[in-house]
Amino acid sequence: MKAVQVVGYDQQLRLADVPVPEVAGPYDVVVRIGGAGVCRTDIHILEGQWAEKSGVALPYTIGHENAGWVHAVGSAVTNVAEGDKVIVHPLITCGLCRACRAGDDVHCAASQFPGIDTAGGYAEYLKTSARSVVKLDDSLEPADVAALADAGLTAYHAAAKAARRLRPGDRCVVIGAGGLGHIGIQVLKALTAAELIVVDRNEDAVKLAESIGADHGVVADGGHVAAVRDLTGGEGAETVLDFVGEGGATRDGVAMLRRAGDYHVVGYGENIDVPTIDIISAEINFIGNLVGSYTDLCELMVLAAQDRVRLHTATYPLESFQDALDDLAAGRVRGRAILVP
Amino acid sequence: MKAVQVVGYDQQLRLADVPVPEVAGPYDVVVRIGGAGVCRTDIHILEGQWAEKSGVALPYTIGHENAGWVHAVGSAVTNVAEGDKVIVHPLITCGLCRACRAGDDVHCAASQFPGIDTAGGYAEYLKTSARSVVKLDDSLEPADVAALADAGLTAYHAAAKAARRLRPGDRCVVIGAGGLGHIGIQVLKALTAAELIVVDRNEDAVKLAESIGADHGVVADGGHVAAVRDLTGGEGAETVLDFVGEGGATRDGVAMLRRAGDYHVVGYGENIDVPTIDIISAEINFIGNLVGSYTDLCELMVLAAQDRVRLHTATYPLESFQDALDDLAAGRVRGRAILVP
Amino acid sequence: MKAVQVVGYDQQLRLADVPVPEVAGPYDVVVRIGGAGVCRTDIHILEGQWAEKSGVALPYTIGHENAGWVHAVGSAVTNVAEGDKVIVHPLITCGLCRACRAGDDVHCAASQFPGIDTAGGYAEYLKTSARSVVKLDDSLEPADVAALADAGLTAYHAAAKAARRLRPGDRCVVIGAGGLGHIGIQVLKALTAAELIVVDRNEDAVKLAESIGADHGVVADGGHVAAVRDLTGGEGAETVLDFVGEGGATRDGVAMLRRAGDYHVVGYGENIDVPTIDIISAEINFIGNLVGSYTDLCELMVLAAQDRVRLHTATYPLESFQDALDDLAAGRVRGRAILVP
Amino acid sequence: MKAVQVVGYDQQLRLADVPVPEVAGPYDVVVRIGGAGVCRTDIHILEGQWAEKSGVALPYTIGHENAGWVHAVGSAVTNVAEGDKVIVHPLITCGLCRACRAGDDVHCAASQFPGIDTAGGYAEYLKTSARSVVKLDDSLEPADVAALADAGLTAYHAAAKAARRLRPGDRCVVIGAGGLGHIGIQVLKALTAAELIVVDRNEDAVKLAESIGADHGVVADGGHVAAVRDLTGGEGAETVLDFVGEGGATRDGVAMLRRAGDYHVVGYGENIDVPTIDIISAEINFIGNLVGSYTDLCELMVLAAQDRVRLHTATYPLESFQDALDDLAAGRVRGRAILVP
Repeated sequence: MKAVQVVGYDQQLRLADVPVPEVAGPYDVVVRIGGAGVCRTDIHILEGQWAEKSGVALPYTIGHENAGWVHAVGSAVTNVAEGDKVIVHPLITCGLCRACRAGDDVHCAASQFPGIDTAGGYAEYLKTSARSVVKLDDSLEPADVAALADAGLTAYHAAAKAARRLRPGDRCVVIGAGGLGHIGIQVLKALTAAELIVVDRNEDAVKLAESIGADHGVVADGGHVAAVRDLTGGEGAETVLDFVGEGGATRDGVAMLRRAGDYHVVGYGENIDVPTIDIISAEINFIGNLVGSYTDLCELMVLAAQDRVRLHTATYPLESFQDALDDLAAGRVRGRAILVP
Repeated sequence: MKAVQVVGYDQQLRLADVPVPEVAGPYDVVVRIGGAGVCRTDIHILEGQWAEKSGVALPYTIGHENAGWVHAVGSAVTNVAEGDKVIVHPLITCGLCRACRAGDDVHCAASQFPGIDTAGGYAEYLKTSARSVVKLDDSLEPADVAALADAGLTAYHAAAKAARRLRPGDRCVVIGAGGLGHIGIQVLKALTAAELIVVDRNEDAVKLAESIGADHGVVADGGHVAAVRDLTGGEGAETVLDFVGEGGATRDGVAMLRRAGDYHVVGYGENIDVPTIDIISAEINFIGNLVGSYTDLCELMVLAAQDRVRLHTATYPLESFQDALDDLAAGRVRGRAILVP
Repeated sequence: MKAVQVVGYDQQLRLADVPVPEVAGPYDVVVRIGGAGVCRTDIHILEGQWAEKSGVALPYTIGHENAGWVHAVGSAVTNVAEGDKVIVHPLITCGLCRACRAGDDVHCAASQFPGIDTAGGYAEYLKTSARSVVKLDDSLEPADVAALADAGLTAYHAAAKAARRLRPGDRCVVIGAGGLGHIGIQVLKALTAAELIVVDRNEDAVKLAESIGADHGVVADGGHVAAVRDLTGGEGAETVLDFVGEGGATRDGVAMLRRAGDYHVVGYGENIDVPTIDIISAEINFIGNLVGSYTDLCELMVLAAQDRVRLHTATYPLESFQDALDDLAAGRVRGRAILVP
Repeated sequence: MKAVQVVGYDQQLRLADVPVPEVAGPYDVVVRIGGAGVCRTDIHILEGQWAEKSGVALPYTIGHENAGWVHAVGSAVTNVAEGDKVIVHPLITCGLCRACRAGDDVHCAASQFPGIDTAGGYAEYLKTSARSVVKLDDSLEPADVAALADAGLTAYHAAAKAARRLRPGDRCVVIGAGGLGHIGIQVLKALTAAELIVVDRNEDAVKLAESIGADHGVVADGGHVAAVRDLTGGEGAETVLDFVGEGGATRDGVAMLRRAGDYHVVGYGENIDVPTIDIISAEINFIGNLVGSYTDLCELMVLAAQDRVRLHTATYPLESFQDALDDLAAGRVRGRAILVP
């Protein structure tokens, strides 16, 4: 089959011909790819940023946001059958460790991450596990939802966690209305009645945010902290969801946070650097957010089937992977680029 | 009556003769002081550290950890009566704002803080509110529990909040087994079955911790991070309660924290300074902790009456306030110094 | 002023001339009534059903669903001022007992209930407490929201409590789409993404439910249990909110409940009568619901101001109280009858 | 191997010679039995009470409370190895359904129950799954903990769930200090500081309860409801844990419950039969409790290893199964009877 592979760092990806993966273990599931999301992390992988962390041996097939149709299943698989439309959770988890048994499979003690440390989905077929596939509603197509498998899932996880504490009358600031942020906004609208204030440097992103449910849009032009404080009666917001995490976002975000508020860290880059005296005297919390669990992905697919969460996508044939990466690097992709074999 | 007052910053406190406070409003409660805790914050006040924040006009009576007997009550007071033994919550709260109505009175939008921004308890009598007094069990004496009113209450609040997530098999690291820490340890023992690992620079404090319930004591001598990781199977602890917050405690504490763990900030001094990538990839949380609510104080008094929380105290006559402060400053007080009028 | 009073049980209400209530205590608030909801409970009061429970001395002014404008305030009132538009929480609570301090003021150990055990709001003025008044948004008018003060608040409380456990993909059955039910449906739509299945005997009520957000309407005509089980894949719903509680509703409702599900009891009349073996083998819960807290009422007013919760009302001049009661008794009121002085 | 089998209902069990179970699937685990608890359910099985529910084909091997040593494992098993001491969770769960993925494996959509619907542990060997075995601490022996696998696990589950809401100062009534109750009491002592009031008809059971941590013991002799109300200031207890569920226990238990309290149903036999008006006006909850999850069993094993939960046992050779059953039926067993092959 065709597969797009990392053959060396600081080199371009290469289209290769590799064997179709086969079912070996009883819980194996082979998925025929219907869409594979092209993610900024893929660019970072090519730059070698993940080389040491993942320890993956080259060449290997890249791509960690995948959806498609079940092609073959192992003997013990009962939750999907050949032909089912599925989205693929980014992790293959063990199901036996303490975290997995508590439903917190993201912290599995023995997980694999296809596309990062083993063969991924820029290919015609992908091998994953019964524990990683979620059946899609008839109304959803693999290429439309593939990018929800990782970026969208992370946004869902953070927004749903934040929503558990948000009551009517609370305000939630969303910093960053890009790829993750615009999913987060839709999730918050679906799960809470909180007032949403969306902050972004890009005026178009702010407008998009307003069109999908933001109650207030604020362009981050220097006066945004004051603007948010004005919108919150001078008190700050009960919750800040920071999808940026760099370029001063955390300093600004903390200044927008109310006493006893929750600061959700999702985007990354800079340090959280806050005096402990400020943390205790305002009694604020910093909440880390990694990708969502399998259960989170099931819930996100419900919202997608209900048309409460929509993703803008631009599709490319698998062979045009280089165009997709180039467009992404150059900021020419509106929404997410999807490779379709 | 006699009262010990701040007459100027960087000056010594002075014993003054002032009028006994009187009931003016319907919820006023005047307490005859049975014990007033001497706290490091009192030294900071004298150094002027709180001058701007509190905006208090000098001279005023200091002392924010108080217990005694109800001397007089306003017309609307129904929860205590003259003669009742009480401990005094450090804040006078409004009862009407959003935070108060939710039971989260520590974040009251219009609170007063006797001993900080209005007359406190280094005196024969103190005026407070019906919303601030908790009746004591017959078995407890004001001078014995006074220091639980603020330092103890803070430790209770943090430990009880941490305990809500701790399950059997979890490990909880307590950094600092001093004034707050040794209350925190007793509270954790009362509320959870988690394994307690206590870290302190002082060998005697570690021994004390072991005698009151720590499962493991670790002297912070440079190898303590490694020691804690060894005690937690190399994974780190599910929870860290940091009663120190300075001198590198937070860097060490974060290194002791397990994936998906909670870092409770209680002590303060330095910054939490952690890369956002570490916060999200381990999905850890930083939880701020201020003093406890009125309900927290009620619960702490239950534990005290059950003899599950004990405090070491050294009493001084009110007139010997200077000795108490000197002893505290010189590290000569074991437990807490208490002024008794 | 004019006031409508109970002068004897099994007698008609009588319009009387009584003194305007005056501020006596520091937290008293006198409200000029803008609207008073006419509730089935008022009919039950007249029938003497509450005589013993309330112990109220006749004659007294009836009416427990009130909204209006602040007319006068006691010396300690800081949360409202003369002229403010307010809705009135049905209880006057003490603010000092354990329940009040925890934010759970509905379980106040010393509450009063105007309209039930003291003078209510079928009048030009009502005396209540600072702890009972919630300021209204500019967009809301007292007569429009008065009936949210009790019936609406109960529905909000139950629906918001249920919503805390509902995740996307869960199903929630609402039994009864009448006065409370149709508020509950709107609240559930605002706070969750769960699928709503509404069951009512009345076809029109089912149609109304569908028009305000029910995903599925089921007419309770004998086949409704089977219909709900079909709609839930044969498993039953994760949550049942029962606003009826009589006429066999609970037996049917339990049959619609999934393993590990929550059955919210709101309406009343018959017994919950279920074998313990069924409760434990399916591990289901029965959750009682009383009226909401002050905080619940604040949240409900946010939803009303956001136009997420709307109430149908029919207004009557205060003097036409008998017409309103007659119309209610005869089933001629669509939505809620409101008396306007 | 030797196995004790049900050969017909209303017949005695029979010792048979059957093949040793073998590993077939990748997650299979064969355990060499070290102890098998003899449970009242086993008597009910023989009486045919479970015949229809389980649909099991006779003859089959009985016994659902098992512990021992790992004898053989399937190819995918990573959490235990040959020779490990283990306790066996009573259910074999699928790991793929919605409940399993949320950590709530007791509600698995496709579970098996060895000893009930497939071969159990009154035998030399038992086949179970990697998902069902919990490694034991070195300090624990299979025969000592076997009865914690089901009866103890149920008690742990209910007590730990109740403990989540219990704060210092709360009162918890435990009805029934027998097999489950005396485990529940020990769990509550380990996890909460709540005051425990234990009610039992049997004076010896009450004494035992007091010796393992009950703060108050009450003999159920007719005055017990009044006694509990006295012990709770006339208000009733915040929580009732009912391990009896028959003979009027639920009527009495509800009468002991405070407003806003939780009634945990664990024992069964009679109906919960309570007017909805009482449920809503006191806003009480009835919480069902089935056996605990795998995670619950892990936590219970921590408490056992910490010596916080102890079980009285009487051991019998496997061949003496009839003596054990006879002693149980005649009330001659103190604690739990354990068969040791």
